[in-house]
Amino acid sequence: MRAATIRDGEVVVEEHPDPEPGAGEVLVRVKAAGLNGADVLQRKGAYPAPPGSPQDIPGLELAGEVAGLGAGARRFREGDRVMAIVGGGGQAELATVHERQLMPVPDGVDWPAAGGLPEVFTTAHDALFTQGDLRAGDRLLVHGAAGGVGTAAVQLGAAAGAQVTATVRNPDLRDAVRELGAHDVLDPEGFEEHGPFDVVLELIGAPNVPGDVKALATGGRIVVIGIGAGFRAEVNLVALMGKRGVLRASTLRARPLEEKALTARAMERHVLPHVAGGRLRVPVAATHRLDDVAGAYERFTAGGKLGKVVLEL
Amino acid sequence: MRAATIRDGEVVVEEHPDPEPGAGEVLVRVKAAGLNGADVLQRKGAYPAPPGSPQDIPGLELAGEVAGLGAGARRFREGDRVMAIVGGGGQAELATVHERQLMPVPDGVDWPAAGGLPEVFTTAHDALFTQGDLRAGDRLLVHGAAGGVGTAAVQLGAAAGAQVTATVRNPDLRDAVRELGAHDVLDPEGFEEHGPFDVVLELIGAPNVPGDVKALATGGRIVVIGIGAGFRAEVNLVALMGKRGVLRASTLRARPLEEKALTARAMERHVLPHVAGGRLRVPVAATHRLDDVAGAYERFTAGGKLGKVVLEL
Repeated sequence: MRAATIRDGEVVVEEHPDPEPGAGEVLVRVKAAGLNGADVLQRKGAYPAPPGSPQDIPGLELAGEVAGLGAGARRFREGDRVMAIVGGGGQAELATVHERQLMPVPDGVDWPAAGGLPEVFTTAHDALFTQGDLRAGDRLLVHGAAGGVGTAAVQLGAAAGAQVTATVRNPDLRDAVRELGAHDVLDPEGFEEHGPFDVVLELIGAPNVPGDVKALATGGRIVVIGIGAGFRAEVNLVALMGKRGVLRASTLRARPLEEKALTARAMERHVLPHVAGGRLRVPVAATHRLDDVAGAYERFTAGGKLGKVVLEL
Repeated sequence: MRAATIRDGEVVVEEHPDPEPGAGEVLVRVKAAGLNGADVLQRKGAYPAPPGSPQDIPGLELAGEVAGLGAGARRFREGDRVMAIVGGGGQAELATVHERQLMPVPDGVDWPAAGGLPEVFTTAHDALFTQGDLRAGDRLLVHGAAGGVGTAAVQLGAAAGAQVTATVRNPDLRDAVRELGAHDVLDPEGFEEHGPFDVVLELIGAPNVPGDVKALATGGRIVVIGIGAGFRAEVNLVALMGKRGVLRASTLRARPLEEKALTARAMERHVLPHVAGGRLRVPVAATHRLDDVAGAYERFTAGGKLGKVVLEL
């Protein structure tokens, strides 16, 4: 099979042996695979794939057709449309995934949207609800709301009855984020004057954290899942104590199979019905063929886009 | 009545009007009142009492006899032995407390122990179990374990089946902390090499936080409730993400009546039976008469003691 491959800090296309599904695993013929921030970190050598995942093939999510079943795998049949988060190796023509990590692709969702759906919606859903305990009526702040996870979080927050405020650096994208359900879209500069917020989804990183603490409501939760702008955060503990606040940081990638499988079940129950009904969607900023994988990474790192960059295979 | 009174950064004894119990309140003739770190901050002008509490009389906890009942108060009768956390004003001959904040003093607990019990045990219980979700088998680290909250936390952690590690600066106090139930008692220097810990109770402050993050187990919780050594903490978000960790900061003092009352009910249910049974105790380092309130504050701030400094009234 051919796959995107990390070589000396670049992503190129190389030939690899076809993977074979182990017990409980499914072989997926990949049709689309979204790009994510972790792929870029991994390309720089800063974020190695977890053990058991391909070390040199990037890609944290994929969508495709079932092409084979390992021993004991029984949730899907050959030809089924499936999608999943994977620990790595998603940006390849073939990938093996444990059947408990796979989700069905709802009818009416095309391959680019399906390939860009699992990581951002699972990440946003887990961060907002499992980590952040978001409830109807809560005031939610989403930083970096025009990105992949941000667009998912704005939609999920609005769908759950939260009052959503979003920060977006690029003024050209603010109307689009408002159309996704944000009640208020701000420039990141001075956002801390617009609180208080019950939940802050931090997708940018350390430079925002002092403001996040300042803008937090009593009993509020800051959930950090993106650190592109820096990771050494200064936290004013007096302010956090006074608010009985929580700073929580998380990543899906390092979790064991059973926890990833739980997030997939939560997606099937709480998110996919809304996707099937058209109430949640995956904004796709650009698609690139595998042969143009370098172009896909260039587009991804250029920023200033709304939603996902997806590789088509 | 006479009361400890903050005047120009000192604590002196002054005459005040007797307080009168309002609806639902109980008038308590105070017998003993523990000193706490917040009193010292308040003396410096750094930590004003919450609205509705006496602004110039320190004291966050008290024990004494019921001396009068406000309209509708029916949980206690005159002469009952009671104790409570209060927003301020505990270090006085008389204090009014809402009956929902009061707890009965178990038989066999003397006045100094009762006067030094509510703040430290309520704080430690809330921090370990409500905030930190401590479970049997968890590895617990208690920083500042020889202090009031520390000695309570070590005992509560051990009683709940946690594996308790404690840091104690004064080598002379380490054996006493071990006798309270700590499995391991360390010098604070280099504590981060002794992890991982599922729950870290931070009673010292910001300087420990980078080590707390380093020593945290996957899914671990840092609960900050003391900041005497500093409040500007540096948090490595990459490390916290990799551990799916939580940094939580809290204080009892700023909470509304209903939340304080809930902590009193949790104490009655989960802690006082162990106190009555002699399995939990309040180490009292020193008692001082009200006339020697200056001496009490001096003893408290000198440090190097095991357990509480209590004012007798």
